[in-house]
Amino acid sequence: MTNTSAVEVHTQSEAPVILSPAQFLDYWQGNRRLTRRVIEAFPEDPPEDQLFSFSVGEMRPFGVLAWEIHQVSELTLTGLRTGEWPMPEWRNGVSQDRAELLSAWDGLTAQIQKELPQVNPAFFSQMHALPWGEMSGWAAAIYNIDNEIHHRAQGYVYLRALGIEPPPFPSYMGP
Amino acid sequence: MTNTSAVEVHTQSEAPVILSPAQFLDYWQGNRRLTRRVIEAFPEDPPEDQLFSFSVGEMRPFGVLAWEIHQVSELTLTGLRTGEWPMPEWRNGVSQDRAELLSAWDGLTAQIQKELPQVNPAFFSQMHALPWGEMSGWAAAIYNIDNEIHHRAQGYVYLRALGIEPPPFPSYMGP
Repeated sequence: MTNTSAVEVHTQSEAPVILSPAQFLDYWQGNRRLTRRVIEAFPEDPPEDQLFSFSVGEMRPFGVLAWEIHQVSELTLTGLRTGEWPMPEWRNGVSQDRAELLSAWDGLTAQIQKELPQVNPAFFSQMHALPWGEMSGWAAAIYNIDNEIHHRAQGYVYLRALGIEPPPFPSYMGP
Repeated sequence: MTNTSAVEVHTQSEAPVILSPAQFLDYWQGNRRLTRRVIEAFPEDPPEDQLFSFSVGEMRPFGVLAWEIHQVSELTLTGLRTGEWPMPEWRNGVSQDRAELLSAWDGLTAQIQKELPQVNPAFFSQMHALPWGEMSGWAAAIYNIDNEIHHRAQGYVYLRALGIEPPPFPSYMGP
């Protein structure tokens, strides 16, 4: 790059050359596989499922965080496909039933696999008016992943506090 | 996309159309600003700095995690620029001095701002032989961010366990 002028550097830096939709799909699904493993790593000690009862520092239990990840992911998939970002009822669907969570999780995984490739690739570099501000499709998409990594990592601390070895991180890196 | 054939969908999905180098720079720097705020949020109670003493579940204190983030970020910047990925001495430079950490942090922030735009944009979509496997420049770059989000989120739990309100998440979303 030493022979490239400043103008060329600027032009190149604005071109969306880093990430393909296929890579983003793999990346998202890899993250989902790891989060699912973290959900499953919480001990079920009936009648109390630690997934929905254990926490640190008065934070939400990991099962509740996992439902939030699920809702944000569902919202993001809808937004990317349709340009509409309807807010979910955050408190609905947050059951204390681990099987229900995993079933919803797997349903959305299949839906992402099917529907993400239908997103117009141009959507990602365009700007969109989201309820929480104007941003690119990229920013909307990556916020969703960041939210998942952020809350999943909190689950790692809960597991350590329970004396349980969490799944290796990151473990999901594909091409 | 309903009128697009499967072949076209496939071709489009392989094209790196989602993210520009300029957006990636903003995204990385936004993450760094938030992590810096988390570092600063830990109470300093001399002679014991909670940044380097407090932890949950026998995990590493947040100051040590922050040094790891720093080292991985430095390594990643070098790798993206040169294609070389020399492993750092993980235990070196991990001082218990908060001012030293923040100074190294700010130095690297300036270096990223200056040097990331010098990375050949083609690097991101090409495959590279990293010490931990063959992957694209994208995968190498995003692993670095994921590692930062993952460990920073663990700092959020430590702060909550200390009774301290962490900085709002994500707070760094740009275009």
